[in-house]
Amino acid sequence: MRFIVADWGTTRFRGYLIEHETILDEVSSKEGVSALKSGQHRDVFMRQCGHWLEAEPDAPVLLVGMVGSREGWVMAPYATCPAGPEEIANAMIPVDLGNGRNAYIVPGLFCEPAPGTSDVMRGEETLVLGSGVEDGIVCSPGTHPKWIEIKGGQIERFATYMTGEMYAVLREHSMIGRPATEPEDPKGFNLGLAAADRNSGTSHVGLLHLLFGARAAVVSGRMDTGLLAPYLSGLLTGDEINGALSQFGKPASVTILAESPRADLYIHALGRHGIATQVRSPQEALIAGLARIVRHHSRAKA
Amino acid sequence: MRFIVADWGTTRFRGYLIEHETILDEVSSKEGVSALKSGQHRDVFMRQCGHWLEAEPDAPVLLVGMVGSREGWVMAPYATCPAGPEEIANAMIPVDLGNGRNAYIVPGLFCEPAPGTSDVMRGEETLVLGSGVEDGIVCSPGTHPKWIEIKGGQIERFATYMTGEMYAVLREHSMIGRPATEPEDPKGFNLGLAAADRNSGTSHVGLLHLLFGARAAVVSGRMDTGLLAPYLSGLLTGDEINGALSQFGKPASVTILAESPRADLYIHALGRHGIATQVRSPQEALIAGLARIVRHHSRAKA
Repeated sequence: MRFIVADWGTTRFRGYLIEHETILDEVSSKEGVSALKSGQHRDVFMRQCGHWLEAEPDAPVLLVGMVGSREGWVMAPYATCPAGPEEIANAMIPVDLGNGRNAYIVPGLFCEPAPGTSDVMRGEETLVLGSGVEDGIVCSPGTHPKWIEIKGGQIERFATYMTGEMYAVLREHSMIGRPATEPEDPKGFNLGLAAADRNSGTSHVGLLHLLFGARAAVVSGRMDTGLLAPYLSGLLTGDEINGALSQFGKPASVTILAESPRADLYIHALGRHGIATQVRSPQEALIAGLARIVRHHSRAKA
Repeated sequence: MRFIVADWGTTRFRGYLIEHETILDEVSSKEGVSALKSGQHRDVFMRQCGHWLEAEPDAPVLLVGMVGSREGWVMAPYATCPAGPEEIANAMIPVDLGNGRNAYIVPGLFCEPAPGTSDVMRGEETLVLGSGVEDGIVCSPGTHPKWIEIKGGQIERFATYMTGEMYAVLREHSMIGRPATEPEDPKGFNLGLAAADRNSGTSHVGLLHLLFGARAAVVSGRMDTGLLAPYLSGLLTGDEINGALSQFGKPASVTILAESPRADLYIHALGRHGIATQVRSPQEALIAGLARIVRHHSRAKA
């Protein structure tokens, strides 16, 4: 079965024409949702993917990512965990492409990682469904890394960390990260992971203290400024992992949805905890997850 | 005994003429060390305080704060904990004011809060010596709040947190804090303190997760944006306090070096832990601490 997809995030538009799990054709532009105003989305989609619509009159059309957020084409309300491909397919929101054809926005997911608390994802749910994991833990690194618990093929619950954004904000805007210099010394990553150990188990000195400690080490001449950026990366990644292991328990293995070199950092950091890792390409996971959603969608319409 | 002091920080110059612990006269300007180049410091000091030098030919002159940092007048190397007024007085660094007169830069303090780790302060050591605490825990809130353990009149060790700077950076530069709106709803502070409880004791979900949770609560419609800024303040303050209690143990009482309303937030947050608080004005503590250092300095010179 052929289908058409737009992976439409904050900063990028990526269109794919797919047969089963093979990409037949693709387009890409910088027309992410943050660059668009209300009412512009259909025109962008038709300009990028309209030729596929004509050539494939029966192909389902799916839109995934921030295109379903408040700032996107239409707000697609979050589905609630636990949710699998069927629940997500059933919660898709149609948008009119003209000529009687609809595209379907894949909704994001909401969950309560603990009673009364909130967490959300938008886009990652599709990758997770394509991760190949039916029972286990998936980690999706990035600006806001997500750890996802899957049970019986359903996304049971998940937790998000602001690791990547925190790193960027500290580097660009803080007294802690600004002294960092290049060339970076990658040994700092391990030093940061070791520092994060002081904020786990029975010791809990606090991330805010460990972050200041990086500055203290620099101004007291104990840390070379080339170590600082990898150190902050290691400290934040280590604290994220400590939190995830506390939240979900320590798994025997974790599936990481990332390419090198980012995946390598997680493989190394999780290896310190004796946790095995599988790596899956985010793009492959996206296409596989979309294919599952499409199958449920087509069944529901049949 | 009369003495002359400059409390010379990053953004402000404050000069005082003091008799015992009473301020006889004071000056203030925006000539903080970040506004000055190497070689300008003496001129600034003489223009602001030169008239006191002439009127008080025997008064000791002390400089305290970032004036002793790498970016200041002269780099005054950190003294090492444990240190009391005598050790700090003995580690002061003279700078030449002309006419055979010296000013003395109060050094900052270095300590290892845990073996191999680093922490520093520059300026707060003087307030702590004037806190009136001979055995106990002092908290000095601010951009980089410090918790200080005092034993037998000496600063035994301390830990710094990037709480205030983190709040500012999140508010101004992050997806987490930017949705915050005014008027602020102060109830958010308590919600943030309660969220921080999930990162203490046996639960350790991670500050990076709790920070993202604020965004998740907003985008899922579960938190009013007027609550967000006080929530972040409460979450960060709560996590700082959790870290300090883990590092120093839970004291019966803490002395807070701050004015209202900042002191009130700490009184409230520590009260949740059943910890009593005393509040001391930072300016009074500064003057009292300087008076102690001056007495040791004069004794050493006598």
